[in-house]
Amino acid sequence: MDETTSPRRRAGGRDAKRAARSARSGVSIPYISRRIPFFEVLDEEGLATIEGNAETILNEIGIEFRDDAEALALWRNAGADVQGERVRFPRGLCRSLIQASAPREFTQHARNPARDVVIGGGNTVFAPAYGSPFVRSLDEGRRYAAIEDFRNFVKLAYLAPSLHHSGGTICEPVDLPVNKRHFDMVYSHIKYSDKPFMGSVTHPLRAEDSVEMARIAFGERWIDEASGKPRTCLINLINANSPMTFDATMLGAAKVYARANQATIITPFILAGAMSPVTVAGTCAQTYAEALAGMAFVQLVNPGAPVVLGSFASSISMQSGAPTFGTPEPALVLYVMAALARRLGVPFRSGGALCGSKVADAQAAFESANTLLPTCNAGVNFVLHTAGWLEGGLAMGYEKFIMDADQAGMMQTFLAGVDLSENGQAMDAIREVGPGKHFLGCAHTQANFENAFYRSNVADNNSFEQWEAEGRLDLAQRANAVWKKQLAAYEAPPLDPAVDEALLDFMARRKASFPDSNY
Amino acid sequence: MDETTSPRRRAGGRDAKRAARSARSGVSIPYISRRIPFFEVLDEEGLATIEGNAETILNEIGIEFRDDAEALALWRNAGADVQGERVRFPRGLCRSLIQASAPREFTQHARNPARDVVIGGGNTVFAPAYGSPFVRSLDEGRRYAAIEDFRNFVKLAYLAPSLHHSGGTICEPVDLPVNKRHFDMVYSHIKYSDKPFMGSVTHPLRAEDSVEMARIAFGERWIDEASGKPRTCLINLINANSPMTFDATMLGAAKVYARANQATIITPFILAGAMSPVTVAGTCAQTYAEALAGMAFVQLVNPGAPVVLGSFASSISMQSGAPTFGTPEPALVLYVMAALARRLGVPFRSGGALCGSKVADAQAAFESANTLLPTCNAGVNFVLHTAGWLEGGLAMGYEKFIMDADQAGMMQTFLAGVDLSENGQAMDAIREVGPGKHFLGCAHTQANFENAFYRSNVADNNSFEQWEAEGRLDLAQRANAVWKKQLAAYEAPPLDPAVDEALLDFMARRKASFPDSNY
Repeated sequence: MDETTSPRRRAGGRDAKRAARSARSGVSIPYISRRIPFFEVLDEEGLATIEGNAETILNEIGIEFRDDAEALALWRNAGADVQGERVRFPRGLCRSLIQASAPREFTQHARNPARDVVIGGGNTVFAPAYGSPFVRSLDEGRRYAAIEDFRNFVKLAYLAPSLHHSGGTICEPVDLPVNKRHFDMVYSHIKYSDKPFMGSVTHPLRAEDSVEMARIAFGERWIDEASGKPRTCLINLINANSPMTFDATMLGAAKVYARANQATIITPFILAGAMSPVTVAGTCAQTYAEALAGMAFVQLVNPGAPVVLGSFASSISMQSGAPTFGTPEPALVLYVMAALARRLGVPFRSGGALCGSKVADAQAAFESANTLLPTCNAGVNFVLHTAGWLEGGLAMGYEKFIMDADQAGMMQTFLAGVDLSENGQAMDAIREVGPGKHFLGCAHTQANFENAFYRSNVADNNSFEQWEAEGRLDLAQRANAVWKKQLAAYEAPPLDPAVDEALLDFMARRKASFPDSNY
Repeated sequence: MDETTSPRRRAGGRDAKRAARSARSGVSIPYISRRIPFFEVLDEEGLATIEGNAETILNEIGIEFRDDAEALALWRNAGADVQGERVRFPRGLCRSLIQASAPREFTQHARNPARDVVIGGGNTVFAPAYGSPFVRSLDEGRRYAAIEDFRNFVKLAYLAPSLHHSGGTICEPVDLPVNKRHFDMVYSHIKYSDKPFMGSVTHPLRAEDSVEMARIAFGERWIDEASGKPRTCLINLINANSPMTFDATMLGAAKVYARANQATIITPFILAGAMSPVTVAGTCAQTYAEALAGMAFVQLVNPGAPVVLGSFASSISMQSGAPTFGTPEPALVLYVMAALARRLGVPFRSGGALCGSKVADAQAAFESANTLLPTCNAGVNFVLHTAGWLEGGLAMGYEKFIMDADQAGMMQTFLAGVDLSENGQAMDAIREVGPGKHFLGCAHTQANFENAFYRSNVADNNSFEQWEAEGRLDLAQRANAVWKKQLAAYEAPPLDPAVDEALLDFMARRKASFPDSNY
């Protein structure tokens, strides 16, 4: 598994060539297997300093596990020092619990087995943005999201060859009651896509509903016959309440998923300067300490259940306290956390196309690229927020989604690295053309014409005159036309009518069994 | 010098802390000294394959040196096989000529010695974009550039703390005759800035004029007393006519500068698929071969004259043939070429904030970031086109300039790496705050408040409501206000009136000595 961490010869790398070809021609691949090294910003000594500080935080300050007596009992049994809700850990305890049983990588199964993803190692899986209460489009501006928007984004993610995953709460369907939204969200992921998806984490019962719907959807594939355990068909976002706190909701959801052998992403959600120190090294040590405690907790609940080390860190404006994105400090945090996850030996989640901009303008693009490139260079394994994110996560943008999906496609080509096959070296072309001539008509160019370069579906590279004649459209305006065309042409993947009926029946029964509530 | 190529502990790195602090507080530093490793995409074996192919190109196919008998004689004397204008090189000849005398890094002197830049090693110098016939602003749209625009951009570059260099032909002053523009361009760099700048390369006589004006401007600092040779006060852009050709204009200008001990950047200007093969590995081998021949030629003309390995590679749209920017393939070329320059032991020029977009929209920003981040990660030493570039270099954008300069400031913070000092580790802050509290008011945050995070002067991170109340401006609109305010507040750096008079007198005499021409 570790061979992916070292550079290796790309010559004849069939996977790489397939991935590059797929990206260039807009064909889906289930996930990216990188063929270039990871970018490191800290050396061994620096990383060891951060690790040591994390152990000091765990040992001296500890982590609070709130309103969950079972969690405290598990920690007491594991040898931690529990006083009230504060848990302090012998140095190395969390690390050794994780390394004893957590998988270094795992498969998340999709309804369509061709779309199963392997999370960890040198792989990168792109998923849409998560959690916005608002949506934005050029036509309507900003408004509250509805279940129709949720369905639209599931469809757009299904149609995007560069997105390998359907995501989770792509936007909040604010038109549905809070305590029943999860049914329609999970159903939409199953019905309108066949890519892997995420479950609900806002209440342990909603996590149980998510597991039950996955069980129905996967049918006889739910149980792995070899192990007798459920296959991992859901991945779920468990946020720490930074600093150094886990609450009962998140702990409860984590326990449901862990016991069902479903994957959890333990993510300290940190606006540095508010939930952590204003420095990169301080933010990394605290993030790592919190993630270690959360991942070790999952291993106590069910040793071997897949866990992912998550990091979400933004800087803040020291004037207004508002979160800021695409700035250099979060990029440094991301690189450090990725290296720590590799050293620990667990998959890593971070990054995406984050931005603070309200609209899909140049600020949004600069900030998004300043997040997505570190995401790819650092080797993030599971990338939430790859497409659509605006306004610090408050809004899901239709045009932004199309732009971001295009950028994700470029990353796929980049991560495939340099083709050093004989065709890639192209010495025959150079010999054929010679000094002062051009390569447009040569045999090698003709043979590689179709898949030579990544082709954007929204960038305009026409002449100035042609661009003027076509109405001087900017990227957002062109993206507006693209998502409308895609939704108009959308066709759902096949779903066994019996499964569909069973899901609808389950939802109807469950929804009828308790009253609507917005809490 | 090579210590900069390996990661090292950042703890207590005073340079790094100074650079990071400067970037965060918007204070000028003369250039960036990186404190993070270089990002490599190819391993040793892969790089050796490209190097071997470049030697094969030089040996079997050769390079044409056109309309320059002196160049052919120099090559014949050096042991190359010269047939007509085609020069074929014994394997390793160019490399050994360069390694025998070309400096690994060198100082380019500025009129203000505090702004001298060291080009090479782990340093990065940011210069504005170069060569656009048009300018674009939100107020006027796109129009031909004039000398007034040129002066404006020199002033804006002087005012930008993140730009270390005044550049060269920032835009073409189309209102002046082609054969006399260089006087006013070089004069503007001297008069309106005190940062280092570039000379003219469009004719050997214009190169001589540039050298003469630099000699007047630098006065007694022109000659280095220790060596008796001129100090390097100009850096100059010599493009190859790819594929595998140098023309008399570029060779003539290169000879003028080399003999005056001024620096030349030998840059194969390549639209891959037209001037080189459609593959990354093929483009790299050809670029390297051309650059080797050009740099070795400079060493034949004047051993020890500073040379820089340049690479400008874009992909093209295989539909229209138009150049495309910010795509993954040119990023891969950039990383490979940077590694080859390090292996050879010469400074490297590439990258910038390149884009194909006509306007400063999200396309421009995505493409620019997709170029600037690889530029910084790869360790480009001299970055032309850092700010202002639009439309494949056809237009210099006022708003784009402001946005790009902001991004360059972020790169300065990023390249300073992670502060692992005690203050950077921030363990006292974490101890003080503890679980469930916030860090906004703690002593460490208060002490680091001012310089904690990079502060953009154009990004909007206010609340949605405040952004709406302020007119829903996008980044381009905010940047429009910034450049106008900066130009209104501009004050020129001091210039000795005697030097100014001598420059004006030289220009007047030279301009009067031959008729205007637009060729």
